[in-house]
Amino acid sequence: MIDTGLAEELSRIVGARFVRTERAELATFASDGLPTYRRTPAIVVLPGTAHEVCAVLALLERRGVPFVARGAGTGLSGGALAEAPAVLVTLTRLARILQVDPANRRAVVEPGVVNATLSRATAPFGLMYAPDPSSQTACTIGGNVAENAGGPHCLKYGVTANHVLALEVVLPSGVPVRLGSGSGEPWGPDLVGAFVGSEGMFGIATEITVRLVPLPPEVRTMLADYTSLRLAGDAVSQIIAAGVVPAALEMMDHNAIQMVESSVYAAGYPADAAAVLLVELDGRAAAVEDDARLVGSILGGSGARSVRVARSAAERDKLWQGRKKAFGAMGRVSADLVVQDAVVPRSALPDVLEEIASIGERYRLRVTNVFHAGDGNLHPNLSFDAADPDQVERVHAASGEIIRACVGAGGTITGEHGVGLDKLAYMPLVFGPDDLGLMAAVRRVFDPDGRANPGKVIPTAQCREWRPWSAS
Amino acid sequence: MIDTGLAEELSRIVGARFVRTERAELATFASDGLPTYRRTPAIVVLPGTAHEVCAVLALLERRGVPFVARGAGTGLSGGALAEAPAVLVTLTRLARILQVDPANRRAVVEPGVVNATLSRATAPFGLMYAPDPSSQTACTIGGNVAENAGGPHCLKYGVTANHVLALEVVLPSGVPVRLGSGSGEPWGPDLVGAFVGSEGMFGIATEITVRLVPLPPEVRTMLADYTSLRLAGDAVSQIIAAGVVPAALEMMDHNAIQMVESSVYAAGYPADAAAVLLVELDGRAAAVEDDARLVGSILGGSGARSVRVARSAAERDKLWQGRKKAFGAMGRVSADLVVQDAVVPRSALPDVLEEIASIGERYRLRVTNVFHAGDGNLHPNLSFDAADPDQVERVHAASGEIIRACVGAGGTITGEHGVGLDKLAYMPLVFGPDDLGLMAAVRRVFDPDGRANPGKVIPTAQCREWRPWSAS
Repeated sequence: MIDTGLAEELSRIVGARFVRTERAELATFASDGLPTYRRTPAIVVLPGTAHEVCAVLALLERRGVPFVARGAGTGLSGGALAEAPAVLVTLTRLARILQVDPANRRAVVEPGVVNATLSRATAPFGLMYAPDPSSQTACTIGGNVAENAGGPHCLKYGVTANHVLALEVVLPSGVPVRLGSGSGEPWGPDLVGAFVGSEGMFGIATEITVRLVPLPPEVRTMLADYTSLRLAGDAVSQIIAAGVVPAALEMMDHNAIQMVESSVYAAGYPADAAAVLLVELDGRAAAVEDDARLVGSILGGSGARSVRVARSAAERDKLWQGRKKAFGAMGRVSADLVVQDAVVPRSALPDVLEEIASIGERYRLRVTNVFHAGDGNLHPNLSFDAADPDQVERVHAASGEIIRACVGAGGTITGEHGVGLDKLAYMPLVFGPDDLGLMAAVRRVFDPDGRANPGKVIPTAQCREWRPWSAS
Repeated sequence: MIDTGLAEELSRIVGARFVRTERAELATFASDGLPTYRRTPAIVVLPGTAHEVCAVLALLERRGVPFVARGAGTGLSGGALAEAPAVLVTLTRLARILQVDPANRRAVVEPGVVNATLSRATAPFGLMYAPDPSSQTACTIGGNVAENAGGPHCLKYGVTANHVLALEVVLPSGVPVRLGSGSGEPWGPDLVGAFVGSEGMFGIATEITVRLVPLPPEVRTMLADYTSLRLAGDAVSQIIAAGVVPAALEMMDHNAIQMVESSVYAAGYPADAAAVLLVELDGRAAAVEDDARLVGSILGGSGARSVRVARSAAERDKLWQGRKKAFGAMGRVSADLVVQDAVVPRSALPDVLEEIASIGERYRLRVTNVFHAGDGNLHPNLSFDAADPDQVERVHAASGEIIRACVGAGGTITGEHGVGLDKLAYMPLVFGPDDLGLMAAVRRVFDPDGRANPGKVIPTAQCREWRPWSAS
């Protein structure tokens, strides 16, 4: 089924060893971080330069072949999956840090640079790249741009969109364009805001100018544990209401604590707690000291059973290990795991968490909650076995009910994982036919033939045909 | 020349007293905050509801009439000027605050709400709307959205784009659409990022959901004065490099100080100084105290002649008065004033300021610098008499050289005032024909006939015709 002519032409651009057509090789690219979908691309191509990206996309354009861009494939919405005849364009070879400009606190990177690598490179200058998805040791900045990735520290520092200043983009036609100006805040008709979060539908970013922020001189990490989820949720609201902006404010429920504590990632969380809160404060020493006093007194008065403060970097890393490796720990108790993603207003957290628990019971699924409580970004995780069609069916149904519950509480269908394949069907819960039609029309500007990440994000069946010139 | 039939139809929608056709009335809408342009609209219409905005735009669509949206008309790039046959749609009657949600720190407002009014309404809840353009007592949130407005406190808090969560927009066709989801950070293909800063080309926002932030419990304002601009510029870099994030970090040069001090807005600045720095710190008391110690010692070591700290709210207001009323003070010394706007990398500030001074000398123009030094956003102001064509010519030529100098130093053509009419010719300095063609193509999705704010922002002559399906 492989178009050997196309593979040969691609080889002429990038070299034969960077074109993959063997079934076994293709299979390694057939899934991302979400195990409910598998799609096998026709060909995988790995360009090594921006120039090669242009040439590859121009070739695919001439041949009318669809394509999907992919970074490290850690995404959680099925967004980086390609199905034949689509070609998967993997960008991990474009992994150079092109510039670090400490005086103006900017860096210019290629899309395949791993998130954590950039902060390691800028640490000697006292700077960091703030967005820190939990997959940051693997995921790429290019993928972060596609998904407008968040992370625990985005509560204080903002998501990817707040940290991207300018982009060099190769359009699906192969034409390179420059979005944004790289100087200062976005202004005028710059299209950076539209591109960040466009999930691979608008083209491939080959050069990304990001903002860097100072490494905080002081970091304080606290753990509070509770006998009820509601008490923990109320503590979150009180901390925010007190005017403190923690660097991170994370919650894990009883199931999550148990899975972590019975795994190799055991972090010393009280195993019988209904919930733990992980609060991190950062900044200059006096400010952190003062915030820590206030947060400590709020936690103490909020019904926490105990409040611990990490006394060393090693203790802090251990507290975070439980949070960052929670998904890995869950992998031990079931064959597969869906990390769901939705947002609710902070004030609705306790009620929605109860509703999610009852949905889990109704569908006989183990639900585990590990999430960014400070900004209401939930991650209800469903453990299951993908080999059992009945379980897969129940996971899909329960996911749908969870998303509907979040939307019903005034929230929305994704917080940081994107729409991809997984949330496609939920888009009409938050957008009407005209809203979706407008999105599709903007997509067509970048990609008139719908060849860039086809079948994702925008549910075309629900779009009103876009005729802005005829008022309804 | 007035299309009385159109005026009558508009009257049927909004009521006769909200349709203006008299020459004297139209003249009051013929300029904005930038005195170098005058444009007289065919008709001014003032809708009172979002429903009326829909009906007005649908009517203009049927008649093929172009239009320009306008808030308070305080803009500084000629962006809200309409020239007959265009109709000016003034939104000052849509001035309701529809919702304040303190628990989730959001507000929903109509576009005509005055910027400062929103923060006054949310102050009882301990919250504020952070973006604070110097015109904030007059300018509207709708206008702020169109221009992606900044302000002194955007150094710490971010510009308008960072504070808009969702939008109800009436497209140029009269069709209403919803952009963004209002919950949490932007995600997926939301078009809020593209709309904010689109300068009236994409339609009219009738409902704006904004983020609110806590009022800082403590504010500390400091003034340092210098005998050289370069010393002041170096102090700015040192403060930023020390990892402090001031709420504001403003600079005024000798000419600005003199104009302020000889006006009714005298703020007690040392009249002989080459430059003053205004540094504001805010947050919780201990953090502010600590930051103030550090900033005080940096300023002391940076060659400042004196460092003053405001001891009361009244003293603080007085220090700010000099900055916020500087443009008014300049109005005393010449008939007219162009407030220019450009960005340079912070490290290039001292060199660029010297170059601007020499451009001023060459064109025999008094240049005054009052600007957001912390983020390198310059405002070189040119005093002149608009009645003298030779002076007008010199202002245009000097502006062009200033902008080129900023771009040459790695900066860009506008920081917060937008492109509008004034920067149209400079767009090709930072964007190529394909970049501009893409902008024009996105514009056409929202406005296929080019009737929304025609002739602004995108220099159509320089756009490559947009055929993304043919690789170049």
